[in-house]
Amino acid sequence: MTLNPADDAFAETLAAELPDNSLRRAEPRYLEEPRGRWHGSSGWVALPRSADEAARILRACNAARVGVVPFGGGTGLVGGQVAPDTPAPLIVSLQRMSAIRAVYPQENVLVAEAGAVLASVQEAAREAGRLFPLSLASEGTARIGGLLSTNAGGVNVLRYGNARDQVLGLEAVLPDGTVWNGLKRLRKDNTGYDLRHLLLGAEGTLGLITAASLKLAPVPASVGTAFFTVESPAAALALLALARDQLGEGISAFELISRQGLDFLTEKLPEVRQPWPAAPEWCVLIELGLARGLDPASALETLFETALDEELVSDAIVAQSEQQRTEFWAVRERIPEGNKAIGAISSHDISVPLGAIPEFIERGAPLIAGLGDFRINCFGHLGDGNLHYNVFPAPGKRREDHVNQREEIKRTVHDLVHAYGGSVSAEHGIGRLKVEDLERYGDPAKLAAMRAIKAALDPAGIMNPGAVLRG
Amino acid sequence: MTLNPADDAFAETLAAELPDNSLRRAEPRYLEEPRGRWHGSSGWVALPRSADEAARILRACNAARVGVVPFGGGTGLVGGQVAPDTPAPLIVSLQRMSAIRAVYPQENVLVAEAGAVLASVQEAAREAGRLFPLSLASEGTARIGGLLSTNAGGVNVLRYGNARDQVLGLEAVLPDGTVWNGLKRLRKDNTGYDLRHLLLGAEGTLGLITAASLKLAPVPASVGTAFFTVESPAAALALLALARDQLGEGISAFELISRQGLDFLTEKLPEVRQPWPAAPEWCVLIELGLARGLDPASALETLFETALDEELVSDAIVAQSEQQRTEFWAVRERIPEGNKAIGAISSHDISVPLGAIPEFIERGAPLIAGLGDFRINCFGHLGDGNLHYNVFPAPGKRREDHVNQREEIKRTVHDLVHAYGGSVSAEHGIGRLKVEDLERYGDPAKLAAMRAIKAALDPAGIMNPGAVLRG
Repeated sequence: MTLNPADDAFAETLAAELPDNSLRRAEPRYLEEPRGRWHGSSGWVALPRSADEAARILRACNAARVGVVPFGGGTGLVGGQVAPDTPAPLIVSLQRMSAIRAVYPQENVLVAEAGAVLASVQEAAREAGRLFPLSLASEGTARIGGLLSTNAGGVNVLRYGNARDQVLGLEAVLPDGTVWNGLKRLRKDNTGYDLRHLLLGAEGTLGLITAASLKLAPVPASVGTAFFTVESPAAALALLALARDQLGEGISAFELISRQGLDFLTEKLPEVRQPWPAAPEWCVLIELGLARGLDPASALETLFETALDEELVSDAIVAQSEQQRTEFWAVRERIPEGNKAIGAISSHDISVPLGAIPEFIERGAPLIAGLGDFRINCFGHLGDGNLHYNVFPAPGKRREDHVNQREEIKRTVHDLVHAYGGSVSAEHGIGRLKVEDLERYGDPAKLAAMRAIKAALDPAGIMNPGAVLRG
Repeated sequence: MTLNPADDAFAETLAAELPDNSLRRAEPRYLEEPRGRWHGSSGWVALPRSADEAARILRACNAARVGVVPFGGGTGLVGGQVAPDTPAPLIVSLQRMSAIRAVYPQENVLVAEAGAVLASVQEAAREAGRLFPLSLASEGTARIGGLLSTNAGGVNVLRYGNARDQVLGLEAVLPDGTVWNGLKRLRKDNTGYDLRHLLLGAEGTLGLITAASLKLAPVPASVGTAFFTVESPAAALALLALARDQLGEGISAFELISRQGLDFLTEKLPEVRQPWPAAPEWCVLIELGLARGLDPASALETLFETALDEELVSDAIVAQSEQQRTEFWAVRERIPEGNKAIGAISSHDISVPLGAIPEFIERGAPLIAGLGDFRINCFGHLGDGNLHYNVFPAPGKRREDHVNQREEIKRTVHDLVHAYGGSVSAEHGIGRLKVEDLERYGDPAKLAAMRAIKAALDPAGIMNPGAVLRG
């Protein structure tokens, strides 16, 4: 099925059905993505102000067989936000739908439009004395619609789940231009198939999310943050199990950091303050959020002492102030920046079953070494079994020297992940970057079902063409 | 599309493809359901021992256009487990697939086959020092496959979520007889559409779940249980908000009970020990599960004192022993038995947004009174906004005297629920009981999408025909 371009004639017809200034020519920022691997074809951007306007836009696109690329904050890392290989699509930006429609503190619910920036949703929750727990590096730019469409992860998944787990209801426009008014605020609703979870994580290929009712959580009464130095990933995992036994659901984050990542920071971002005299081989950033009546400092001390007895840790530094806490988190959150400055040959957002992590890391290193002289920075959300496993050139070499090895490295890492029953896209999604990976590693029955669902809900194939499934 | 019956000829052909004794004639227990409203047509039961055998069964049914009714523990309350109006379907019972395939304590994961009884899954988790939090009255009979297919609720949803929230991965046979090997043990996996959540809650109409990898939770270090007497549902709701402020995620259950329910127990089940000298008008059963270092007794005392100051509660009785805790829960869990002994004219498993509950209850009573002289027993999972709102005849009358009013009562309750943006099936599902309700109250865009998905995945319409969607 061939799509038609969103050309000037189409734009003119569509503009007539919408309020003034609803369409504009696509500026460069709508045609780029952070990795710089794809550039969208030039064309038009539509900027709806309501679900009804979004519906009119999709109806027109469906009738004219014009592709639609939903656009949020543009921070996605797998190219889901730009369509380079199809006739110029209509980009539909949700930026004008950025309202917090309502907050219900007693219900622990907030209703946000898809264009709301994550930080502003967090802020609205905070003002109501509640927590919206989704948290990730791009939270000042990423918008709710994109975060939900990609089922974003981040640092608090261990405790609160992925983006999809924060959603009670959705308002969305389906590919045929009908509006699904599914903005329920219910914790229990068993009336038919869960269309919500189908759109969540579908990366805009099954419909356009325009608003969501989101769960809020209680704000922990107190927070404690510390770096624990551990011998190995296996020790880190044993520490996590110990922490869970002692603290139950009180662990909000559990991030693994390797010396390689710290060395990159030292080299490229020396202004990032590292709290050790010498960078440890492996360490864990642990954050507790505890209920009233519990003291994080003493909980961390108890955890450290037990872990020391069990020879899991050798050192711990507990943040003594909010400023130090911010500094600790900066170490973790600026690692991707350090990586970028060095220049990864191949980056992998993978997950394996928690218990398999130590073996995965142990087996990965010699496999990569077998391909050449590389450096590995393996770090991430250990509590979720989600690692960012990035491969860099040896000192003195550049990523450009290894371009022709990228595929081989990627294949090696992904094959190993697959052998452990893992995922080759833990939190970033498929987008355009991993369409082939999905075909290679995906379960055939699931893939067939996905294709059948796509064809059923979007028979003209207009929604985000080429993302997730080959067009 | 007409289906063919699972007649003797079909059974004979199918039996040849399966190990001995894989088929037997349907005994009465496969053709009945707890409400006694539907009786299945007689026919054959297939009893697969593996996903592969289940796949052979579904392939044969799909080829012969024979309906399939998945059968778990048979405890469902909406008739999803019997198909009365179609040519005799093949009943596929999962009872021989009841193994706990593996437990991974370090990962907090357990893999169970669909035929595993809930209580045995809870037990396996307990033996590993973990908690499988799904808990409901029928847990000694209900099987995992049915619980997941209906997205069951129960008493711990407030803290741990519904059945669907406990699932990391599924193994399932799709309607065409292909096996989806989706038994991942990952917390993060963004590789394509979430087929898992589509099958969960689909009530067997989109495929047959054969196994699941399930999340386990830490066992709370200590538990505290109490009855709080409250003035009104509004006070109960304010108490919940207060409890959340004080205890965060430490509240495991928060159940509302009305005097009507207690009076039914007194009348019909006098052996159930009620801890009050006189039954309170409204009370709440609250259960805390706290982390190490916290004392439930003092937490309950603090909560009571603050609530007393705010005039939300008038009395509290804290369970002083495990035996008393069991007695408290028996009061809550035997209310449905009391109801059954009285005989409800119409029962409603509804949810409304938490904040709307007091108004819903206040407005419901006069509406029902306007229809005649009835008694209302309204009780349930207040923390989830999920009430069981059941209407009974006045003393001296029988449900049979009001059969012709059932529809009107149901409509009145459901219309009110709908007006508040609620759900007419909070935790029981649609089954065959609520197909019309779904058509009446369901969002048209969602219904159209559901029909398209059903047609795409099960074009012959063999899976649980007549459940959820009209055949």
